[in-house]
Amino acid sequence: MSALLTDLYQLSMLQAYLDEGMREIAVFELFVRKFPAGRNFLLAAGLEQGLEFLETLRFSEQEVAWVERQGGFSQRMLRHLRELRFTGDVDAMPEGTVFFPNEPIVRVTAEISEAQLVESRLLNLIHFQTVVASKAARCVLAAPRKTLVDFGMRRAHGAEAALLAARAAYVAGFSGTATALAGMKFSIPVFGTMAHSFVQSHPSESAAFEAFARARSENVVLLIDTYDTEAGARKVVEITPVLARAGIKIKGVRLDSGDLAAHARAVRSILDQGGLRDATIFSSGNLDEYRVADLVRSEAPIDGFGIGTALDTSSDAPYLDAVYKLQEYAGIARRKRSEGKATWPGRKQVFRVRSSDGQAESDTVALATEQCTGEPLLRPVMRGGKRVAAAEPLEQIRARVAEQLAQLPVARRSLDPAAVPYPVQFSSGLRELTKAVDAATA
Amino acid sequence: MSALLTDLYQLSMLQAYLDEGMREIAVFELFVRKFPAGRNFLLAAGLEQGLEFLETLRFSEQEVAWVERQGGFSQRMLRHLRELRFTGDVDAMPEGTVFFPNEPIVRVTAEISEAQLVESRLLNLIHFQTVVASKAARCVLAAPRKTLVDFGMRRAHGAEAALLAARAAYVAGFSGTATALAGMKFSIPVFGTMAHSFVQSHPSESAAFEAFARARSENVVLLIDTYDTEAGARKVVEITPVLARAGIKIKGVRLDSGDLAAHARAVRSILDQGGLRDATIFSSGNLDEYRVADLVRSEAPIDGFGIGTALDTSSDAPYLDAVYKLQEYAGIARRKRSEGKATWPGRKQVFRVRSSDGQAESDTVALATEQCTGEPLLRPVMRGGKRVAAAEPLEQIRARVAEQLAQLPVARRSLDPAAVPYPVQFSSGLRELTKAVDAATA
Repeated sequence: MSALLTDLYQLSMLQAYLDEGMREIAVFELFVRKFPAGRNFLLAAGLEQGLEFLETLRFSEQEVAWVERQGGFSQRMLRHLRELRFTGDVDAMPEGTVFFPNEPIVRVTAEISEAQLVESRLLNLIHFQTVVASKAARCVLAAPRKTLVDFGMRRAHGAEAALLAARAAYVAGFSGTATALAGMKFSIPVFGTMAHSFVQSHPSESAAFEAFARARSENVVLLIDTYDTEAGARKVVEITPVLARAGIKIKGVRLDSGDLAAHARAVRSILDQGGLRDATIFSSGNLDEYRVADLVRSEAPIDGFGIGTALDTSSDAPYLDAVYKLQEYAGIARRKRSEGKATWPGRKQVFRVRSSDGQAESDTVALATEQCTGEPLLRPVMRGGKRVAAAEPLEQIRARVAEQLAQLPVARRSLDPAAVPYPVQFSSGLRELTKAVDAATA
Repeated sequence: MSALLTDLYQLSMLQAYLDEGMREIAVFELFVRKFPAGRNFLLAAGLEQGLEFLETLRFSEQEVAWVERQGGFSQRMLRHLRELRFTGDVDAMPEGTVFFPNEPIVRVTAEISEAQLVESRLLNLIHFQTVVASKAARCVLAAPRKTLVDFGMRRAHGAEAALLAARAAYVAGFSGTATALAGMKFSIPVFGTMAHSFVQSHPSESAAFEAFARARSENVVLLIDTYDTEAGARKVVEITPVLARAGIKIKGVRLDSGDLAAHARAVRSILDQGGLRDATIFSSGNLDEYRVADLVRSEAPIDGFGIGTALDTSSDAPYLDAVYKLQEYAGIARRKRSEGKATWPGRKQVFRVRSSDGQAESDTVALATEQCTGEPLLRPVMRGGKRVAAAEPLEQIRARVAEQLAQLPVARRSLDPAAVPYPVQFSSGLRELTKAVDAATA
């Protein structure tokens, strides 16, 4: 993606830093100030795309020419843009780490011109995947042992949102996505059934089912609600012997409308009586973690769920109060004191204390130089503009998420808001530094 | 964008259509079933990107190879994918047209394999821009004669969302965007000020202001809330004479936190008393159309607003119930009857009746072959896979939006939900066809 995918003010500030000869090291941290209603935890995601962005950051000649045409930028600035690379350090929580308010999940340490310029896109990449992974984790918690598939591409906010939502949902524990390109790009399992239009374009529902089954021959899932769900299920039973003679087995059916629990029960009974005990029931249609939890609670015989719009747009919380703030420049801790938006200064680390059975008990946000009990969550991921390790395989991130979710206290795993916030402490070192910074800039 | 940015089931259905030799013409229509709470009208947007997608649709060898690796697709299907182009017709409401529930805004008429395949991406492109343009139009109505700027890139859902949100907001009447790449791609005016980190990285706020002003020299807008808003405004007044000697004029200030109306009044007074009567006050910070309307109503002396996250994610309504449905195949009207999701069959036109002063009074959704009173809103935009005209300039779409908003009845221009829905009638021809279709598929 173009380096010009940034806010204009980043370029204006870069010009000023160059004019002033400000080339000291800045430390920025990315964190979420407050959680939206209905989120007991968040899952960090999108670091991989953030690192890719930093590694490949450069301005093309065409982009530099556009900057020049805006006016007010010096020739020295344009030369600087042509040569600009990201050469800094990054420390971060690994993708799939559970985190809480005011905990830095990414820390960028670089010459101020570099660290500042990357703000907009780094946030854009990490914010969105964190939004979707956190939503997806709630769906996973709501439907243990069910197949969950991302169905959201058509109403995701553009192409990149669709692709990154598929990735974020998969790392959070979804089984896969319906989006073909996400399958190709990230090697995520791809799932698909059929559309109502396919049924409608055929002279009869049975003809549509049979044609589809013959064309796919494997993993045949038939959509049975175009006209009447139970009648659709009976047609599936009717065509089964015909297809069996051609060596074709129906894997399952999909329900997409009406009272899904009631339809699932009726359809299960029709399929079972028709000898299709192995056929699965997959459901979709305006689902989110709450509706899925209701269906699971009602013991509806549904084996899997396609979750679309609510997942890809995180419809109940489509954004987080995620920010990227300067915490130190030229070795001196800094702090923003704007009303309602004040930050903790200095370069920080997050320590997580676990009980003997591994359960997360409390976190401490401390200065990176402090020694605290607990596991430090931020780890070195980039040094001098180069990754310290290869991209983490998605399966490894999935395993981390599964472990992290299992280690969450039960109240935080619930879809309902936890009565008491998860304990996040701020170290004495951090409190003292804050006072010292305020005294110095009073 | 890759042709594989689609749902896997589109490829499965394509295989079946090929196997069956189904090559008749299908008619699909894109429309919004129900409006989200808090939307009295929607603005159609994104057609241009939809047409670009259709014109350039093709599968690369790498993509065809991926499809082959999935298994279950025939060699004939793979050949078909290699040669596939969109060769159909498109009729659509021009971008910037106001529309209502169940009114088709795009109609695709093509061989079924083509018309079906393009569903996912066409929806993905047109749904998102329609979401944002509709949100942006509300901001425009809330703040007549104010400068509105899209500030949302960092929390937009990925790269394409940021770029298309900038475009959608601009066509809806925003003055521009902070996103540099959107400026380059769409020739949208680009705006920018400075960040808190710039102030924090300097030894004093005054030093930061002066350095920034000297570096930018024109269109200097200073962010004054990093530590104390009114103190910041006094510093702006103090450095003005110094800068004036260097021929630099301060254009304005930006407020980003606290009680914006109260701060704006205090700052206006400080600036006026300091001789900076021409300096503008720009504000930002978690704004949406409601907060902007409150500020305008309170007559706060604010000249412009940066609207970010709430705009780019359309936070109160991050998606629409937008669908793309088969309405006719092989000359026969079709209809989906799924519970709560039934559609009107046949290829349709929307007619808008206006009063003598141009105000929109009612719409009729009719069959395309019916003659109704009013202006037909769907127009030919693509024939045989080629556009019938060049891309519409954004300025022309902006002018259409301004006219359409002015022609909206006052109750619909309000941010509050209108007491009575806008009258959308369904023609007698359409009602009769629906009955006939149901009788034929009963």
